[in-house]
Amino acid sequence: MREFEQRFREAMRSKAPLLDRIMHYIVQRKGKQMRPMFTLLSARQFGPVTDAGYTAASLIELLHTATLVHDDVVDVSYMRRGFFSINALWKNKVAVLVGDYLLSRGLLLAVDKGQFELLRIVSRAVREMSEGELLQLEKARGLNFKEDIYFDIIRQKTASLIAACCASGAAAGGASPDEVERMRTFGELTGIAFQIKDDLFDYGAGKNTGKPTGLDIKEKKLTLPLIYALQHVSAEERRWMVRTVKHDNENNEAVARLIAKVEAAGGIAHATMRMYEYRDRALAALHSFPETDARRSLEGLLQLTVERTK
Amino acid sequence: MREFEQRFREAMRSKAPLLDRIMHYIVQRKGKQMRPMFTLLSARQFGPVTDAGYTAASLIELLHTATLVHDDVVDVSYMRRGFFSINALWKNKVAVLVGDYLLSRGLLLAVDKGQFELLRIVSRAVREMSEGELLQLEKARGLNFKEDIYFDIIRQKTASLIAACCASGAAAGGASPDEVERMRTFGELTGIAFQIKDDLFDYGAGKNTGKPTGLDIKEKKLTLPLIYALQHVSAEERRWMVRTVKHDNENNEAVARLIAKVEAAGGIAHATMRMYEYRDRALAALHSFPETDARRSLEGLLQLTVERTK
Repeated sequence: MREFEQRFREAMRSKAPLLDRIMHYIVQRKGKQMRPMFTLLSARQFGPVTDAGYTAASLIELLHTATLVHDDVVDVSYMRRGFFSINALWKNKVAVLVGDYLLSRGLLLAVDKGQFELLRIVSRAVREMSEGELLQLEKARGLNFKEDIYFDIIRQKTASLIAACCASGAAAGGASPDEVERMRTFGELTGIAFQIKDDLFDYGAGKNTGKPTGLDIKEKKLTLPLIYALQHVSAEERRWMVRTVKHDNENNEAVARLIAKVEAAGGIAHATMRMYEYRDRALAALHSFPETDARRSLEGLLQLTVERTK
Repeated sequence: MREFEQRFREAMRSKAPLLDRIMHYIVQRKGKQMRPMFTLLSARQFGPVTDAGYTAASLIELLHTATLVHDDVVDVSYMRRGFFSINALWKNKVAVLVGDYLLSRGLLLAVDKGQFELLRIVSRAVREMSEGELLQLEKARGLNFKEDIYFDIIRQKTASLIAACCASGAAAGGASPDEVERMRTFGELTGIAFQIKDDLFDYGAGKNTGKPTGLDIKEKKLTLPLIYALQHVSAEERRWMVRTVKHDNENNEAVARLIAKVEAAGGIAHATMRMYEYRDRALAALHSFPETDARRSLEGLLQLTVERTK
C-alpha cells in the first residue's frame, strides 16, 4: 500500500495551482482505500505485484475519486468523510471538471503503460456506474419497484467497480481470461453485499455509522429493507409508508416511525439474510482459487465488508 | 456524414428508458457537427474513410456532447430559500451522469475496435479541456492576466479537441506519426482561430450570432478584446472597466458602454487581426500536405470558422 500511495500521489500531480491544491486536498482526505486493496490482492493471487498491478490500482482509485467528486454534485451532499466536499468549496462546475480531469489522468496512465485490457475493464465500469445511478434516479420516482430492480441498480452502481478492481488486478497479474472472469464474479458478489450493508446502516442496523439514520428515506431512495417491508404489510400500512417517503420525509418523527415499521415487517432481517447469502456466494467464487496469503486477505476484506460497523 | 450519423445514433442506444429519451433528445439537437467533419476529412486526406475513421468521429462527437452536457451543470444560483430546487437537482444529477455515460460509451467504442492510438489522443484531449476550463475559472477571479494566459486557456479548453479531431482522423487514416503531428498542429491553430471568433461575437463583431452580446462580461470572463483594451487605456479608464466587469456587470447600459470602449481602444481590431494570423498559420500547416479534395474541404471549414456570422 505504501508503494501504491506514492505512485497515486504522483499520478495526481498537476501544473495548474488550483488543481494542485484540490488534488492535495483529495489525497489528504483519502478513505479506506478498499478498492486499491482489492485490486492489488487480486493481482497478488497470481504472483508478485508488478508495475501493471500498481497502474490498475491507481487508475481505479482515480476513477473512484472522480465518481465521489461527481457524486458530490449529484447528491448535493456538502460533507464527505466528515469534511466539506469539493463541491461545497469550489462549486459544482469545478467538481464536474475535476472529476473529468481525474478520470482522464487515470486513462492516460493506462494508455501510457499500454494496458489495453485495463482500459476495457474500466470503461465498462464507468458505463455501468452511470447507467446504474440513472436507473436509480428514474425508478426513484415510482417508489414501486421490486427486489430484482434493486439488485440491478446496486450491481451496476456499486458492484461493477469492485468487480473491475478484482478483474483488472487479476488481468494485471497475468491471470487467464477464465480466471479474470471468476475474479470479476467474486468482486461483483462482494460489491452487492457491500451495498446491502450500506443500505442497512441507513436503518440503524449496525452502529457507529457516522451517517444520519434515515438519509435514504429523506432522499426518497428505495432500498432493500423498505422494498421488502412494502410487500409484507397491509395495504393501509403500505399507503402510509409511501405517503411518508413521498411527502413527509422531512419529518424526523415520521421517518423514525417508518424505520420501526420496516424492522417490524422483517425488512432488516430479510436484507441481512440476503447480504449473507451474497457473502457466501462471493466466498464460494473465491474458493475456486488456490489458497494463498492473498486469498486469505481477500477473504478478510470480504468479512470486513459485511461485519464493519461504519 | 450520413454513414457517420447512423453509426453515431447506434452508439448512443441504451437499454434504460430515461437514458434513451435523453439520447434521442441529444441526437435531435445536433449542432453543426464540425468536429466529426474535421475528423473524417483528416482521415480522407490519407485514403478512403475506413471503419477506424468513423469510430474516431463517433468517439469525438460523444466526447464533445459529454462536455456540452457537463457544461450545463447549473451554478448555486438555482438555490431557492437556501435549498436547491427540485428541477435544478434533477438537472444537475442527470447532466453529470449522462456526461459520464456518454464519455464511457465513446471509450468503449475505441476499446472494442482496438484503437489504442485513438484512446491516447482522446484521453489527452479530456485532460487538456478540463485543465483549460479550470485555468479559466481560476484566472477569472484576478481579472488581470495577459494575452499569453488567454492563449493558454483557449488552446487547452477549445483548440485541444479540434486538434484531437485532426490527429485522430489522420491516425485512423494510416498517417505517419509526423503527419499525425502536423495535422494536430493544423487542428490546434484552427481551434484557436475558432475561439477568438466566438469571443469576438460577444462584442458584437460579426452578426446573426444568436448570442446575447456581452454575456462573457456578465460572467466576468476576460477575453482577447477586453485584455487588449485594458492595456491600452488610461489608468482611470482601466479602473472603471475592471469595476464594471466585477461589480456592475448586470447593468446592461454599463456593459454596452464597456463594449464601446473596448472597440474604441482597438480591442476588436486587435483580436480580429490575431484571429487572421492563426487562420494563416493553420493554412500554412495544412499546405504542408498534398492538395486533395479532402484538403480543399478542410480549407473550406477553416474559412467558415473565421467567416461565419453565427
